[in-house]
Amino acid sequence: MTTRQRLDVDLGDRSYPIFIGPDLLSDESLFSPYIRGSQVMIVSNETVAPLYLEQMQQLLPAKQLASVVLPDGESFKNLDTLNQIFDGLLEQRHNRTTTLIALGGGVVGDMTGFAAASYQRGVDFIQVPTTLLSQVDSSVGGKTGVNHRLGKNMIGAFHQPQAVVIDTNTLNTLPDNELSAGLAEVIKYGLILEPQFLTWLENNMGALLGRDPQMLAEAIKRSCETKAKVVAEDEKEAGKRALLNLGHTFGHAIETHAGYGEWLHGEAVAAGTVLAAQLSERLGWISSADVDRTRRVLEAANLPLAPPAGMSVEDFIDLMAVDKKVIDGQLRLILLKSLGDAVVTSDFSEAMLRDTLSDAIS
Amino acid sequence: MTTRQRLDVDLGDRSYPIFIGPDLLSDESLFSPYIRGSQVMIVSNETVAPLYLEQMQQLLPAKQLASVVLPDGESFKNLDTLNQIFDGLLEQRHNRTTTLIALGGGVVGDMTGFAAASYQRGVDFIQVPTTLLSQVDSSVGGKTGVNHRLGKNMIGAFHQPQAVVIDTNTLNTLPDNELSAGLAEVIKYGLILEPQFLTWLENNMGALLGRDPQMLAEAIKRSCETKAKVVAEDEKEAGKRALLNLGHTFGHAIETHAGYGEWLHGEAVAAGTVLAAQLSERLGWISSADVDRTRRVLEAANLPLAPPAGMSVEDFIDLMAVDKKVIDGQLRLILLKSLGDAVVTSDFSEAMLRDTLSDAIS
Repeated sequence: MTTRQRLDVDLGDRSYPIFIGPDLLSDESLFSPYIRGSQVMIVSNETVAPLYLEQMQQLLPAKQLASVVLPDGESFKNLDTLNQIFDGLLEQRHNRTTTLIALGGGVVGDMTGFAAASYQRGVDFIQVPTTLLSQVDSSVGGKTGVNHRLGKNMIGAFHQPQAVVIDTNTLNTLPDNELSAGLAEVIKYGLILEPQFLTWLENNMGALLGRDPQMLAEAIKRSCETKAKVVAEDEKEAGKRALLNLGHTFGHAIETHAGYGEWLHGEAVAAGTVLAAQLSERLGWISSADVDRTRRVLEAANLPLAPPAGMSVEDFIDLMAVDKKVIDGQLRLILLKSLGDAVVTSDFSEAMLRDTLSDAIS
Repeated sequence: MTTRQRLDVDLGDRSYPIFIGPDLLSDESLFSPYIRGSQVMIVSNETVAPLYLEQMQQLLPAKQLASVVLPDGESFKNLDTLNQIFDGLLEQRHNRTTTLIALGGGVVGDMTGFAAASYQRGVDFIQVPTTLLSQVDSSVGGKTGVNHRLGKNMIGAFHQPQAVVIDTNTLNTLPDNELSAGLAEVIKYGLILEPQFLTWLENNMGALLGRDPQMLAEAIKRSCETKAKVVAEDEKEAGKRALLNLGHTFGHAIETHAGYGEWLHGEAVAAGTVLAAQLSERLGWISSADVDRTRRVLEAANLPLAPPAGMSVEDFIDLMAVDKKVIDGQLRLILLKSLGDAVVTSDFSEAMLRDTLSDAIS
């Protein structure tokens, strides 16, 4: 029996469905209702295209199909690579009724979404995320964009897809470290808002690492539900949505310092989440037992718990100062009031932050 | 006495005011209500910056001010130049509460607007257009973007400014041919929708060419009112907004044939407008007296009335076939039912179009 789930992200006239389950890339009926014109451009990368591009193409025989295969990796998530998508669209004379399909991980999704947001000032797109990270994170919420050499995701748009199709079979080809990196974001949902889901993850981490399809589908669905709930309340990231960035301000500093691609995003988020928990403990908000529990669940997912060797307190302070969550010079962080209850706060001193970083580094 | 006008563009929660009058670049109170943070980035170009950048900077002494000066010209309206704006914003550590100010003509406005639309997924911007063309055209409507080597304005966003400040003094430094080119678009508003404004322009062309500040402010205000009315009805260009393209399909063909920069946009539109009037006469919609009247008002503004020598009927037909207004192989044009009443139509034969072009060229 095929277990297929459907989740609806409620955003008024920009609402869209998320389909989750095995064998979805064999089901044309999931796509055709969301493609309004005759033109489709599939955007993928050199790693994913050999695995799934042909399958995707065979799904849409009636369409005027084109495809662009980008180089793989965060280091190519920039305006130059974005322009390759525009080149393809214009060379194939795609018009305003075209639909872009993002077939790949978060980088492909973010770039394809931004290309869709800005080609002829906005066309449709469908997300087909093929990594656990993109399935639980970047395919929900409408954030699209590219990096700049001075900061991640600094150029982009909010642009909602017409639909998201998550075929859990694609996880069978995902490397182990990328599966773990995705689990960092899954664990995050438990930590910020869903204590029961956190417990579920602690109990089922072995099955998830063993790629049990039913367990993975359940984890993806609950993650997407949590994110969809937050996003529906706060589409443009004025308040609650910031909670989704638990560990990310520290994590972005780690990624930038290491050089894009050296640390997987989820790995950096995991180490950043431990730092957020430690600062929360220093504030007296959570116990050392809570910090240990946070570390254990991340460790069970085979994730790193500390920043890279050689990264100094000053490195962190400098890199965190350009973070998007700085407002008028005031750094705000996502910290934990308890496990399953996060807040956005600037209610900490720079000394506390420095001490936390210093302890973690030594 | 200073005569200052205010016009409100009604777009729901993205509504904004347009201020028009002399000496506005000396009035801080026009800007400060529309700047929500402490950071401001002024974007200008090599031609306009020496004239007005310092004045603009002195207006905002309390702000953390930065500026980027771009090379001047349509040939620099691309992703590479756009990236210079992002470089400046990130080097100066501007955050999501920054405000961009576009100080220059249409190219500066389009690029600054797109930078504002996409920097950190959207920040505020204020338009300070310094050419007549940008004051009556590109500062209203929210269209932003850059060119791609395969097409003009192919990459962009709809992004509304917080305010538009039109200081008519800036027209004192505008070259004569650019003033005339701007008047081509002003006359267009009369021809498509406002017969009384057309008469007003016929009666006051001398004063406008003499740069009478009060008359210029009136012409700008009535042009912006007309465009704001059309845009408010049709923000995303589904229907009525196409009327704003009177003369533009012919004009684009002239610009492309001459090579961009050889003919000013407004000059090409003027010659295109005469062609549109002549085809309308051939259809029996307007009289030869109406065509003469159209020619006379454009001639009074020192605008060209005929295509460049050496451009053939075939040149026009080929170049017009790639226009964005071709839908399913059918060329649509903006033609005149009477002076002050334009329609979008494909209700003409290719023979009629060819005869009109042939007569105009000989």
